[in-house]
Amino acid sequence: MQTNHHVDTIVALATPPGSGAIGIIRLSGSRAIPIVNSIFKGKNLLLQQGYTVHYGEIIHESEVIDQVLITLFKTPKSYTGEDMVEISCHGSSYILETVIQLCIQKGAVPAMPGEFTQRAFLNGKMDLTQAEAVADLIASNASAAHKAALHNLKGGFKHVLDGMREQLIHFSALIELELDFSQEDVAFADRNALMDLLLQITQRTHQLLQSFTLGNVIKNGVKVAIVGKPNAGKSTLLNALLNEERAIVSAIAGTTRDTVEETLNINGILFKLIDTAGIRQHTTDEIEAIGIARSKKAIEQSDIVLFIFDINDSINEVLSQINQWDLAKHQCIAVGNKLDVSASNIQLLQQQFSNIPITNRHYISALQQDGIEALKLSLFNMATGDSLNFENTIITNSRHFAALQSLSQALQEVKQGIDNNIPGDLLALDIRRCLHFLGIITGRIETDRDILGTIFGKFCIGK
Amino acid sequence: MQTNHHVDTIVALATPPGSGAIGIIRLSGSRAIPIVNSIFKGKNLLLQQGYTVHYGEIIHESEVIDQVLITLFKTPKSYTGEDMVEISCHGSSYILETVIQLCIQKGAVPAMPGEFTQRAFLNGKMDLTQAEAVADLIASNASAAHKAALHNLKGGFKHVLDGMREQLIHFSALIELELDFSQEDVAFADRNALMDLLLQITQRTHQLLQSFTLGNVIKNGVKVAIVGKPNAGKSTLLNALLNEERAIVSAIAGTTRDTVEETLNINGILFKLIDTAGIRQHTTDEIEAIGIARSKKAIEQSDIVLFIFDINDSINEVLSQINQWDLAKHQCIAVGNKLDVSASNIQLLQQQFSNIPITNRHYISALQQDGIEALKLSLFNMATGDSLNFENTIITNSRHFAALQSLSQALQEVKQGIDNNIPGDLLALDIRRCLHFLGIITGRIETDRDILGTIFGKFCIGK
Repeated sequence: MQTNHHVDTIVALATPPGSGAIGIIRLSGSRAIPIVNSIFKGKNLLLQQGYTVHYGEIIHESEVIDQVLITLFKTPKSYTGEDMVEISCHGSSYILETVIQLCIQKGAVPAMPGEFTQRAFLNGKMDLTQAEAVADLIASNASAAHKAALHNLKGGFKHVLDGMREQLIHFSALIELELDFSQEDVAFADRNALMDLLLQITQRTHQLLQSFTLGNVIKNGVKVAIVGKPNAGKSTLLNALLNEERAIVSAIAGTTRDTVEETLNINGILFKLIDTAGIRQHTTDEIEAIGIARSKKAIEQSDIVLFIFDINDSINEVLSQINQWDLAKHQCIAVGNKLDVSASNIQLLQQQFSNIPITNRHYISALQQDGIEALKLSLFNMATGDSLNFENTIITNSRHFAALQSLSQALQEVKQGIDNNIPGDLLALDIRRCLHFLGIITGRIETDRDILGTIFGKFCIGK
Repeated sequence: MQTNHHVDTIVALATPPGSGAIGIIRLSGSRAIPIVNSIFKGKNLLLQQGYTVHYGEIIHESEVIDQVLITLFKTPKSYTGEDMVEISCHGSSYILETVIQLCIQKGAVPAMPGEFTQRAFLNGKMDLTQAEAVADLIASNASAAHKAALHNLKGGFKHVLDGMREQLIHFSALIELELDFSQEDVAFADRNALMDLLLQITQRTHQLLQSFTLGNVIKNGVKVAIVGKPNAGKSTLLNALLNEERAIVSAIAGTTRDTVEETLNINGILFKLIDTAGIRQHTTDEIEAIGIARSKKAIEQSDIVLFIFDINDSINEVLSQINQWDLAKHQCIAVGNKLDVSASNIQLLQQQFSNIPITNRHYISALQQDGIEALKLSLFNMATGDSLNFENTIITNSRHFAALQSLSQALQEVKQGIDNNIPGDLLALDIRRCLHFLGIITGRIETDRDILGTIFGKFCIGK
């Protein structure tokens, strides 16, 4: 399905900018192979098979630019579905820029962000949910986000939507069959069976919509504020939480200890710890007030609050802190610290603090790293609602969420239509609207160029 | 020539870190293909040819990590000369790190910086001058450095050295033939012919040594300080110089206008302009002195000084500025500015300022960009000594320079030996020393592991 919007052959750097051993330049389009062949000294690329690699030189007016490896892909067996060439150069910015300029001189045009994937979509190699999963996959920096993206890239969400679409089309076909025989007043479509089908689809839609909360957690992580009065042990708790982190995680996320946010990976979900521990002890009341205001701001910005208190303090002192920060209003875990310097045991503490208006309570020693694992599990469960099953599709994309909301409403209207016994032709129109919202998600309907621009504009160039 | 130091199969990321469309992981060693095959779902890679590409999935305990393209290279037709695999993944740090960890679990070891190229050297795929050129090529960010590196990568320097080596071996063979027949007192080696040969090699060595000044300029760029009294037009000149710069250059070099150094590319040579223009006009004598001190520091750090003065100032004023900065001691170009607001023409100015102790003089209007091209040409010629011919080998590496200096000295000793009629066996020993220093450059002699470590340690990992 070659269409007119993309007759150009496009070129872009496909690897991250910067120096490296290898840099890859990618071309896609009907002239990809002739363009590269015209600047290549080696075998005649026009005569080679797809999925083969060829060593040679990129030349410009008899001057050698680089020694390269060329990989060929032929339509339709390529990422975009078009003829594609990958040029593997030495990873010098100078060389890569020069080779891209040469390709442009020979007739290629610079690719827009996401244009390779957009072509894959336009050529029917993937639907929109899969195309969007490519960007999510590249951006994923923890295992849950990676799994959700890969599930969608492999067509997990597409499969669910295709199933719903088939059911709706079946439903629609029965209604329309009735219309053809309307003069004979035959009811092909058993209204009860139709209603059952509708409820199934509605339920599936609601499941998907509900999964968006988890999807957001997976895709964007969970913001956690650690609050507590000075000396309650905020810094020690932060260190204890981060301590067990495998070094690899901070290397991946590119986080540094200099930033105010630390990143904690629990079972593949990223928790972004808003570090109010940096707020030092203050002597004057005025500065103390500034510290409390900052903590309040952190609480407002967070999804979950870790409230840390000293178990050697009185219950009234602790209750006053909870009131001070309005913690009962938030998703909150209360963390009683300093088990190591307390005469009480956990059982006694549970009695002592049974009145505090936070149901999720832990008693730990941050210093001795005692109780940290259980606390992490609570954080994970609170964030994911105990359920993280990648067999089920999880919505992570707000565009999909919006379309599913519209679908939900349209399904509701179909249901009301049946309840009100509206004529079959009107019912058929309402079902069409449902199919329309499904089509918006997968891109099966004629997708507005502006919407495509928004979707693919978020990609990096070269993808 | 598989040797014992590198029986391991190594793995590393070959593309720059960060997000991109594609990230490439590279393996080299006898187990490269089996290791990747054990985590690959697709064709059996063990049965495939070299220089072919295969689509499939990287899996770990039945969980899919990524959809990838695998490129196979088989010994000896690969970069390292060993079996090699390139895994082309989606460019997510999470995925790339996970796949590398999987390869390590299956028995690969993380590559040291430059270890792929080191193996190419150890397996006889390239000599040391070519291996070092790989690193230079990746680091090159302007055409001259790129050409010099590519010339060496293609064996340009190796070829010169091999020629010298052959001549010396021929020389040595004649001397040693004499030794075999020494009792018969036959002189196979015509001393005059030998001396001629020696002079040729000595001359070639000196040419190479001399090229190092240019090589340094090519590889490291030229530092240029722009000095002049406030209001002489330093900022305007800087802008005029940079103005004609093609946008592409700053994109390549990654330079920003925020830094104190601006980069100017003239005919492929990078000039690093030390911007003293930022030193603002001062009113008090004390702050004026600080400005002069800063300019002096910039002059000390620079290779070339651009001295800009106002042609409407008196000759005495200009001479006092030249004295103030001791400019006669430096490589300097005098730039008379403000032709646009002067009644004089260039001929008159040449007379007026004929006394200044700087022979290279330009008269320009920085504001109207008049005379800028001629000034750039002067800068280029002063930096390169008018000669930039890539047909000739240019030494850019200080290790090579040091070895060539030793060679030059050893050649001198052979020459003295002939002059002093020393016995043939001693002469043969002296010639061996010359061959030794040549061998140090190419790595033909047994190269010390420490030296190899130093050479390849400068590489990025994955090369």
